[in-house]
Order: sequence, then structure tokens, then C-alpha cells
Amino acid sequence: MPSISKKGLQMPESPIRKLVPYAEDAKKRGTKVFHLNIGQPDIKTPQVALDAVKNNELQTLAYARSEGSEEYRNKLANYYINNNINVAAENIVVTTGGSEALLFTIGSITDPGDEIIIPEPFYANYNGFSTASGVTVVPVISKIENNFALPKIEDFEKLITKRTKAILICNPGNPTGYLYSKEEIEKLKKIVLNHDLYLIADEVYREFTYDGLHHTSVLSLEGIEQNAIVIDSVSKRYSMCGARIGCIVSKNDNFIKTAIKFAQARLSPPTYALIASEAALDTPQSYFDDVKEEYVDRRNTLITELNKIEGVKVANPKGAFYCVAELPVKDSDHFAQWMLEEFNYNNETVMVAPASGFYSTEGEGKNQVRIAYVLNKKDLIRSVEIIAEALKQYNS
Amino acid sequence: MPSISKKGLQMPESPIRKLVPYAEDAKKRGTKVFHLNIGQPDIKTPQVALDAVKNNELQTLAYARSEGSEEYRNKLANYYINNNINVAAENIVVTTGGSEALLFTIGSITDPGDEIIIPEPFYANYNGFSTASGVTVVPVISKIENNFALPKIEDFEKLITKRTKAILICNPGNPTGYLYSKEEIEKLKKIVLNHDLYLIADEVYREFTYDGLHHTSVLSLEGIEQNAIVIDSVSKRYSMCGARIGCIVSKNDNFIKTAIKFAQARLSPPTYALIASEAALDTPQSYFDDVKEEYVDRRNTLITELNKIEGVKVANPKGAFYCVAELPVKDSDHFAQWMLEEFNYNNETVMVAPASGFYSTEGEGKNQVRIAYVLNKKDLIRSVEIIAEALKQYNS
Repeated sequence: MPSISKKGLQMPESPIRKLVPYAEDAKKRGTKVFHLNIGQPDIKTPQVALDAVKNNELQTLAYARSEGSEEYRNKLANYYINNNINVAAENIVVTTGGSEALLFTIGSITDPGDEIIIPEPFYANYNGFSTASGVTVVPVISKIENNFALPKIEDFEKLITKRTKAILICNPGNPTGYLYSKEEIEKLKKIVLNHDLYLIADEVYREFTYDGLHHTSVLSLEGIEQNAIVIDSVSKRYSMCGARIGCIVSKNDNFIKTAIKFAQARLSPPTYALIASEAALDTPQSYFDDVKEEYVDRRNTLITELNKIEGVKVANPKGAFYCVAELPVKDSDHFAQWMLEEFNYNNETVMVAPASGFYSTEGEGKNQVRIAYVLNKKDLIRSVEIIAEALKQYNS
Repeated sequence: MPSISKKGLQMPESPIRKLVPYAEDAKKRGTKVFHLNIGQPDIKTPQVALDAVKNNELQTLAYARSEGSEEYRNKLANYYINNNINVAAENIVVTTGGSEALLFTIGSITDPGDEIIIPEPFYANYNGFSTASGVTVVPVISKIENNFALPKIEDFEKLITKRTKAILICNPGNPTGYLYSKEEIEKLKKIVLNHDLYLIADEVYREFTYDGLHHTSVLSLEGIEQNAIVIDSVSKRYSMCGARIGCIVSKNDNFIKTAIKFAQARLSPPTYALIASEAALDTPQSYFDDVKEEYVDRRNTLITELNKIEGVKVANPKGAFYCVAELPVKDSDHFAQWMLEEFNYNNETVMVAPASGFYSTEGEGKNQVRIAYVLNKKDLIRSVEIIAEALKQYNS
């Protein structure tokens, strides 16, 4: 039998998705499963985006331009300018989700054996894309005790080698909900300029900042135009994860030209989703105001309820819609699977994402889980009740 | 300034897309451009697919299952069974276009430095995906004189090394329009079994076979269940290139499990396109009969008209909707660009794909172009008139 590649064997299972079969089995047994495992909000997609697709008059569903149409990229540039990010259409490559934006970025700047430094815990699929490209993720550990703040500059610098090509951050952070301050971004700027590295910022949660705090884009800083790359997506902003439209933004022309060659090889982003995404740019501000209010309310509820459980420690997220919680268990992978496989509380259970998959350091995060507050307040309260009961039973 | 990766520098420009800026400039000058460069048919997408999207009632555009829903994969399996390919849902991974199916396949079975043997000329983006994965394309040359038939077994065998992981064919062929016979597929079966290789068949043009000939899928042969991988897509079948839905089909469970890990890392195929693709499976047979009749008519017209031009040699395609034509020019890259940049015939010109991009052997195909017969008969006739006039002017 022909063999699987080393790369294929090394590809990590998604911590967000690997328990899905257990959840499906639980549902087949009649158990209701609350999904806190995935960043799939229940929030309604803006009507203007839904309507654009329903009213489309396409007769032939044709390829779109590989890097996105001039018109869409112009409208996107306007959106960025309104967010204090001064870019033009030529700085943008439209991709099939933020996922592809990461894949093209890693492909354009790294060769197999190169290294990317990422504050840990990090979005699990960074591991997948790095493995797919033969790139080594070098984690720099951030701690739940510090609310997952940016590690010290020295911690980064001692990890930099000849093979280091980039530092990758997620801001606001998935899975931590941490929002980097302007000062922290300035620190990163110094490091990348000193060592001639790229600074890749996954800013797909840009709009989701709370408590009066503001987001600082790496593209808003002067002097790192050639180093800064933004990964973006419509998925979270407009609650349209299923669209699969994202983009790469950078003022580094060589980088953009290279990314376009990757984009041409796969021909086109999905056309219907482009229609939705272009229309979504006309979403009224009131939509975002409502969504933000809802998320703040959910976050407050979730954190308050989790803190009531003995032995649970939880970081306080200032952005995105995730939090990392430490549970009084040894192995959260086992606990999460057990909740789906063997446990129910009045025929209900909860699916969370074990946090080990968000670390690349072996053994880190074993007692942590990522919880996405993507359900309504009532369901969140009920979910935490279920987790509390599960912990009681699991630990006895 | 941080550097571009070697891989990024090596990524080929798409021969199908690299002349697009020249075409856009021509249009700005008021010149009408007939697009024979890209496999974007003008054929209408089945109404049932268009309607499904227009009538969708989604309120939240959510992620789909990474490998495609059980329901869609079951319906797909039925489609395959109706095409004498005996597979089930578990043998299928739904992808974002045939492009992603290729990317996941190459990632699952090769590591950087590995080799894939491909009959040349081949679909240009095989180069792109191979480069992106650090894999070397080893071409085995097929000749226009033989109508691009499968090269001899010995030609394959002398290219096989320890790093060879697969033979990749496109059947019916892009860019050649060649349809492999059952005997040719049996020959390939022997080679892959003897050398423990994968046989990857890009069968996206399965329905487009002419002159009473039938398509033989690599999955319809017994004894190579563990070796055979089919790449598929809805793009050409239903004239919905912009959907970006494809799939991988294989009975090799380890391979499918590995491909699913790649699929999980990018989360989900595009949801709207899945709605269209699932509905498209209900397209009535009359649609395909009409389309086939139309393509046969176009092919006959194109070949007849091209053969009238002195110095033009053209292979006779038995499938797909491309042909490779040899022109009386030294450098078809230059000629194709010249047609867009400096030439017009009563304010009209033609865009073709220079064939050099469909070869990986340096210098091969320099006097060839790929012509896609994706326009109506009247426009095809006019296009060939324009090419004839262009050749006259170019060569004088």
C-alpha cells in the first residue's frame, strides 16, 4: 500500500473539531449538546448580505478574479481607512477565508524548516497550516496568571534564530480573548525591525473589543510597512463564518505579488460569498453596536458564572468571544470527551475545546479548556451549570 | 526588508491569468477581447442550483462540516454509483474546488523533495500546487503528433525513483482534450501496483466525452482501491466554476483520514456553494445532453476553422473543452501578449493561453497555445478569423 507523507502523519487533529463525532453520538442518544467548542456565533448575518445573495441575478456562476475584483478591494480599502488603516486596493489579496490568507502568507515567506514565533496559547489551526507548509511553530509562553499578556521582549529574542521568519499574533486573541495594547504592538515592532522579521497579525476580531478599549492594527504603526501583514476575514465581523472570504493586507509589494501567485494557482475565491461579503460592507453601525453589547453581556455572564465554580480559574477577555478557563481536572481532553460520551445532566451536555490543542509545548494547557461565548445568555448560564455538575461527578 | 521564500519566488505565474492585465488594458482602449484563455464556459448553470441559492432561508451563514455534510456526501456517492464508481460517503472529502482537492492530496502523500510524474502538457496549476508543497513535477512527454496519447510504460518506468509518490493524470485532459482509453488506464494500473504508487486522476471533465467514447474512472478498476485517488469538482460539470466546490474520492481509508485533517485546519468549504452544489445533483439529463451537443458543435467548428490556417497544427480533442494548437510562431507567449497589446482587427482581439505554462520541460510547447472552446459558435468563428489575421500581421 502506498504511504502517507510524514507531513500528513504530523498534521494535528483540530481540537475544535475532533470531538464532533462524540457530539453527534450524544445527539443520537437524545442528549442536547451546547456547542461552546467553536467560534460559530448564533448572531444573525447582516440582512444586507443575506439579501444580496438572495437577489443575485447570475445565470452562470463564473470564476472571480484570483485576488478579488478591483471594486471589492476598493470598498475593502475604504473600510480599512475608516479603521485608521491607510491602505489601497493594491495592498489587498482576497482569499478563501482567513485560513487561506494564512496559508498564502506562510507559503510566501517561509520554506520548509523555517520558524515562526507565536505567543502560546494560540489559534489551533496555526499548527495545521505550519505543519502543512513544513514550518516549525516556536511558542513563546503567555500565562493565564498574567491574563495572557504579551511575553517580555527578552522571551522573544532568545528564541530568534537564522530560520525565524516571522512573529504571528492574534489580536484580539483566540483562544485567550486578550487585546494587545498599543505599547505591546510597539514592542513587537522593535523586535521585527531589529531582526528583519515579518509581523503577521490575525485581526479577524478587530471589532470585538470591550470595556472602552481600542484595537491597534499592526498596519497603523509607522516604520514597519515592509514587515507588517494583516490576516483578515468576514467570518466573525458579520457572523458569516460559512462565507469563506478573507484577505491579506500588506504594503510590502513583493510579498503581495508573491501571494497573488498562490491565489492564481487556486483560481478564484467563492463567487456567491464575494457577493455577500461586498454587500456586508454596507452593514449599518447599529448592527455592530448591538452585537458588541450582546457579547459584553455574554462575557460578563460567562465569567461570573464560571468564577462561582470551585477550582475554576478564568482569564478576563477584553476582546473576541473566547476565554481560556483552568478546570480542576488533570486532562481536559479526557474530561471534554467524557462530557459527551458518558455524562448528561437532564439529557443535556456541553462541548468545549480542550486547550492542549492551542499549545505546541507538550503538556501545556492540559487542565484548560477554551470556551466560546457564542450562545445566548440563557444557554450560557445553563451550560456553566452543566459544566459545574459534570466537574462534580467527574471528580467524585 | 524581510525576504520572500524560495518557494514563493519559484511559484509560477498562471499562464491562464498572467496576461489578464494586458486584456484589461485592451478593453480600456475600446478593444473587444474574446476570452479563449480560460476554462470559463458561457454555458448557463443549471436552474435548480441557481434557485436553491436564491431561495435559501439562512439567517446565520454558518460553517459547514469540514469534510462536507453526511447528506451531501451521500448524494455525491449516489452520483458516482450512477457513473459506475462504487463508493460511499466515507470515501469522499468535500473541498473548496478541485484546487483544494489537489492541495490536500499532494499534502497527504508527499513531503518536500518527493516527485510526481505527470504526462506533459498538463494543467498548469499542477505546477503551482507542487511548488507550494515543495514537490517536483517529473514530466513524461506526450506529443501533439500522437494526439497526446499516453506515453509508453517504459517512458514512465525510467522516471520512477525512490522519491516518486504518484502518477497524476487529467482525464479527459486539460489542456489536450485527450481521453484515455480503458487500456491506457489499465497500463497505469500495472505501473502503480508494481511500484506502490498512488494514481491520482483529475476527472473533473468526466461528462465531457465525444464521438460515442466513454470515460473510464481509475476508481472503476479492480485491484487498485488503495492506490486510486480521484480529484473532482462541480466547476465544469454544472458550469459553476465560481462555486469552488470539489472533492477527493478514494477507498484508501488512511489517505482519506489524513486529507480530513487538512480539511479541518481550514474549517469549512463555502456554505452557499454547498447549497448550489447539492441542488445541482438534481440537474436533469437533458441539460447534459444539450451541453454535450453544444460542445461537440463548438469543437468541430473550432478544429475545422483552425485547420484552414496555414501553418497551424491542432490535436483532435475527444473530451473536455480545450485543444492545443501549434502556431507558426516561435514564441507563443510573445504572440499572445502582442495580440492583446499591439494588435486589433476592427477593434477586436483574442486572448489565448500560451502553452509553455502547461509544460515543465524548459522550451517545450513554445509554439503552442491552449484554446478553450467556451464561447458560442459565432464568436469562435470570429475568434479564429482574428487569430488568422493576427498571424498574418505578426509574421510579416
